[in-house]
Amino acid sequence: MKQQLVAVCLVCASLAPQCAVAQTWEPPSPAQRCPSKWGADDERGAANHMNPQTVLRASKLIKTGEMVELGWVLSSDMPLVGTRRFDLHTKRTGGPMGSNQRYTNEEIVITELGQVGTQLDMFSHQGIDGLLYNCIKIDDVATRSGFTKLGVEKIGTLFTRAVLIDVAALKGVDMLEAGYEITVADLQAALSRQGVSIGVGDAVLIRTGWARLWGKDNAKYNAGCPGIGVSAAQWLAQQDVMLLGADNFPVEVAPNPDKALNLPVHQIALAVNGIFLLENLNLETVAARGVYEFALLIQPLKLKGGTGSTVAPVALF
Amino acid sequence: MKQQLVAVCLVCASLAPQCAVAQTWEPPSPAQRCPSKWGADDERGAANHMNPQTVLRASKLIKTGEMVELGWVLSSDMPLVGTRRFDLHTKRTGGPMGSNQRYTNEEIVITELGQVGTQLDMFSHQGIDGLLYNCIKIDDVATRSGFTKLGVEKIGTLFTRAVLIDVAALKGVDMLEAGYEITVADLQAALSRQGVSIGVGDAVLIRTGWARLWGKDNAKYNAGCPGIGVSAAQWLAQQDVMLLGADNFPVEVAPNPDKALNLPVHQIALAVNGIFLLENLNLETVAARGVYEFALLIQPLKLKGGTGSTVAPVALF
Amino acid sequence: MKQQLVAVCLVCASLAPQCAVAQTWEPPSPAQRCPSKWGADDERGAANHMNPQTVLRASKLIKTGEMVELGWVLSSDMPLVGTRRFDLHTKRTGGPMGSNQRYTNEEIVITELGQVGTQLDMFSHQGIDGLLYNCIKIDDVATRSGFTKLGVEKIGTLFTRAVLIDVAALKGVDMLEAGYEITVADLQAALSRQGVSIGVGDAVLIRTGWARLWGKDNAKYNAGCPGIGVSAAQWLAQQDVMLLGADNFPVEVAPNPDKALNLPVHQIALAVNGIFLLENLNLETVAARGVYEFALLIQPLKLKGGTGSTVAPVALF
Amino acid sequence: MKQQLVAVCLVCASLAPQCAVAQTWEPPSPAQRCPSKWGADDERGAANHMNPQTVLRASKLIKTGEMVELGWVLSSDMPLVGTRRFDLHTKRTGGPMGSNQRYTNEEIVITELGQVGTQLDMFSHQGIDGLLYNCIKIDDVATRSGFTKLGVEKIGTLFTRAVLIDVAALKGVDMLEAGYEITVADLQAALSRQGVSIGVGDAVLIRTGWARLWGKDNAKYNAGCPGIGVSAAQWLAQQDVMLLGADNFPVEVAPNPDKALNLPVHQIALAVNGIFLLENLNLETVAARGVYEFALLIQPLKLKGGTGSTVAPVALF
Repeated sequence: MKQQLVAVCLVCASLAPQCAVAQTWEPPSPAQRCPSKWGADDERGAANHMNPQTVLRASKLIKTGEMVELGWVLSSDMPLVGTRRFDLHTKRTGGPMGSNQRYTNEEIVITELGQVGTQLDMFSHQGIDGLLYNCIKIDDVATRSGFTKLGVEKIGTLFTRAVLIDVAALKGVDMLEAGYEITVADLQAALSRQGVSIGVGDAVLIRTGWARLWGKDNAKYNAGCPGIGVSAAQWLAQQDVMLLGADNFPVEVAPNPDKALNLPVHQIALAVNGIFLLENLNLETVAARGVYEFALLIQPLKLKGGTGSTVAPVALF
Repeated sequence: MKQQLVAVCLVCASLAPQCAVAQTWEPPSPAQRCPSKWGADDERGAANHMNPQTVLRASKLIKTGEMVELGWVLSSDMPLVGTRRFDLHTKRTGGPMGSNQRYTNEEIVITELGQVGTQLDMFSHQGIDGLLYNCIKIDDVATRSGFTKLGVEKIGTLFTRAVLIDVAALKGVDMLEAGYEITVADLQAALSRQGVSIGVGDAVLIRTGWARLWGKDNAKYNAGCPGIGVSAAQWLAQQDVMLLGADNFPVEVAPNPDKALNLPVHQIALAVNGIFLLENLNLETVAARGVYEFALLIQPLKLKGGTGSTVAPVALF
Repeated sequence: MKQQLVAVCLVCASLAPQCAVAQTWEPPSPAQRCPSKWGADDERGAANHMNPQTVLRASKLIKTGEMVELGWVLSSDMPLVGTRRFDLHTKRTGGPMGSNQRYTNEEIVITELGQVGTQLDMFSHQGIDGLLYNCIKIDDVATRSGFTKLGVEKIGTLFTRAVLIDVAALKGVDMLEAGYEITVADLQAALSRQGVSIGVGDAVLIRTGWARLWGKDNAKYNAGCPGIGVSAAQWLAQQDVMLLGADNFPVEVAPNPDKALNLPVHQIALAVNGIFLLENLNLETVAARGVYEFALLIQPLKLKGGTGSTVAPVALF
Repeated sequence: MKQQLVAVCLVCASLAPQCAVAQTWEPPSPAQRCPSKWGADDERGAANHMNPQTVLRASKLIKTGEMVELGWVLSSDMPLVGTRRFDLHTKRTGGPMGSNQRYTNEEIVITELGQVGTQLDMFSHQGIDGLLYNCIKIDDVATRSGFTKLGVEKIGTLFTRAVLIDVAALKGVDMLEAGYEITVADLQAALSRQGVSIGVGDAVLIRTGWARLWGKDNAKYNAGCPGIGVSAAQWLAQQDVMLLGADNFPVEVAPNPDKALNLPVHQIALAVNGIFLLENLNLETVAARGVYEFALLIQPLKLKGGTGSTVAPVALF
């Protein structure tokens, strides 16, 4: 990716200062981006950061034993992109059974399970010109019932140090404006203000304040949002993080200020660098408490061949 | 519950020794079992054991940073009870989009989400004669789209000390026989052999060896199983545990040796005592490594009004 | 049912004239309504009117060979009651296959199949105090996967003479008002104006004009509607018809002018008399053409144990 | 298509006689097959045969008023190709409501609605090298929620003369063998034996006897089947028929005797000629009664953008 970054910087040098934000980007070629740094056969990307040292580093951040939920309740009332649905149909399946008069209930749930609510995106979710992470061809691994490679069942529980970057607080606003592209300078200023830094294998969670719209103005929530763009995503990828999360639906700014680009951070994270995206977080509580460093726990469902998983992450500290 | 236990013991005295295992049981009356010990308005039962001390106690068990998965991959090939289904339909939802030629994939998942695979049962799942935990009437809280009380979204992440009780190893077999009812004496002998004991708020995971059939002989896996019965469940409930788990589909022995009883442990745990059930675990790896005490992490999805959640628990030690 | 009608009339006599419309009603007792006139074992109700004579009578109404559709297109944009859904997910399932480069597409459809769009209600859909048509107990025939009796697969194609009763035209309005209860007098006046009469085994289709809201103001369409009430339904049942249809969602007036009653015509038709309901018709074209008598063709899907079927009926004349 | 047929015949002439059956085939080029004979903008293909004359011709075949069902009951027990499913989940949605104590039931149905059970294939179902009927590009008309062109809602009720061709009876067998390719000569001999001929706009229903396996040996039913191949399909297309139906899952022989070809009759009918396919018929009763000519009634659901519809056709005579 080095060559490409140079190219971007050259363009920036001639166009500054707006350039730092809304530059043109084109995906690195297959030759530039593959094989991934985790090897040509790798399907786990930044999940390779999970190892005993990472677990120990995270567990040592648990000092008071407090736990804060970072996920939303799943219901048909939550903001849903486009035609996506979350439908839970109660099934009162019987009773009384036995002399003990047992009654039983369950439900059918019908949903784009990896792509609704607080969710972790796996690499099979996004491609560049027909190719997924590690240049695996979509046509080669897509079946009627999931992907034979890069399925979310490959990840396992993520338990790592997380850094909250509160950009809304940095800017002194409740929430950033839709379409605002968070810059590298914003991230660095917020980290400096908070007195924390990003380490290899960390989860980086970016607060825009957008979560305040969740369940209150779903239409606005989904119509666009503030978030990181190409530059910030590339800088974060260079820090070698495990995942990028935010309190909006795509982690990244939407729409991208460069109208020709369609959610490029999805490609930078998932297809180019093998870094997970964690969307639709609720960062209000943890931010209000001023907790900027904590152990993050995410337990994606092991959906065979799935492109992601709805999750219910928590911060432990 | 005291009066009822006395009654059981009187019956036992006259029938010993088989009685210790397959005794008749009838559910305690509403007056006997309600309100729950967590209060008349409580919906969380043993999840009330989750507090900073519990988290700290669990996190201190993380010594090497190793993590072992205790859940199965979710696919249509797994054992499914009755007409339950797990269907994942790939949706190749588009591309190329933008100058960056973004491709996107997702899936529709259709399943009894709380009642397939490795799963945590919530209290809305089971009732006694029309009443759930805390004597909440099913008719009062059931809607077309979930339960207004006792939904699984009330639980949150469970992170507690877990004790593995390896009954198969105690008996020196690969797996116990279908229909074998694990006794209180079995549990006590296994604990003694392993040198561990159960504490308040712990998760108790019982290994029968039945997991060896998973994906290999699904018909046999679901046709019946070894597991705890009424006596062992009552004894475990007296230890004031957070959850009961096992490597079989109902945690408990099935069918119950008393043919009149229909899955009574479901009622004892969920409806009478507010203790969660964790079903279809894979305990083979953790047992093979001889790890009998560890931090258990379970992150149920926050399905509004759901009767349970498919989960992907891990052991940390 | 005779005794009950007498009772209603006595009440009417003392309260006239509004009474003719919004009278109190209580369902006939099981002893009064069972067994049905088609026999104690019958599951088909008015479908028993289908026989070669009925077919011949209908086919003789086909004079010009013209066909008018009476059903709506099924899509997620149509008015859907409450939490009902119609979701069609495209599945591009493959290609190129073989030297002939075959491509194939299909879809997953998820919907309350008998209860969306233009729909035929079967008797398992509605009960009185736990009992369906012919006093079959819901608890005895409900399974996780349909009803063992009174499923829609018992009906077969309906092909019979239909009479359109254009009440909106009688009243000289585009559409009747929501909550307007069509009276027996209305029906008789409209029939007289149109010069047609109802015969045994006929389908009776009542035009309120409400269809004009379909897809234009779905919220209003579902919030209430004009339609027949208890009196008109009982009078039509006495004519021994095969089905009652209308261009609104419940055939009947909603809400019922008697606030204590909850969709009583559903019970009168389905549970008491074994007469089908045909909902959400589009009667605009056939009414505009002044065709009041025609052959009606309805082909319900043979959903095993289903409570109804979405249909696409046509008028032939 | 003329040029291509000539080519096939030349090959045949040099290879006779086996050639008449298992010849190589390649799809006509876009230039050869488009625009369709119904015009470049047409989406209805042979449904254009539906007109008042067709209705009148069909209705005159109704002489005794008898009706025979040609469709199967839809349930999860029926033969389902690959991962297709038919799941009906009962929803006991409430009661008692109102002073009339109304109870209500419905169901969620989840299925590949156009591609299970007795089914009518629409043109969006099948393509040749990325192109559908009339050379409409799949990529241009596929959305997440159906096809913007060539959806099954464009068809409407089909009511036309049908000819049953009983090839099993011709051969004097209960059912033909899997893999047997029905020849043009077979069709002509059977028609001659039965004393009927095919007319323009007719439905042609071919009996192989394969229906005898339905619900009895589902695995065999789906593993392969007898049916028409390329030659017979081309000959039938030349007769300008409305639809081709059979009592097997693909209408055509499967697998094709030419191992390089993958269900070529699907392309010949749907993509080249705009002729519908009607699959999984039950022709046993109508054949047993010796009824070879009748009015066929098919009422596909109006699924917006759907690739087909499950149906419940009947024969009237």
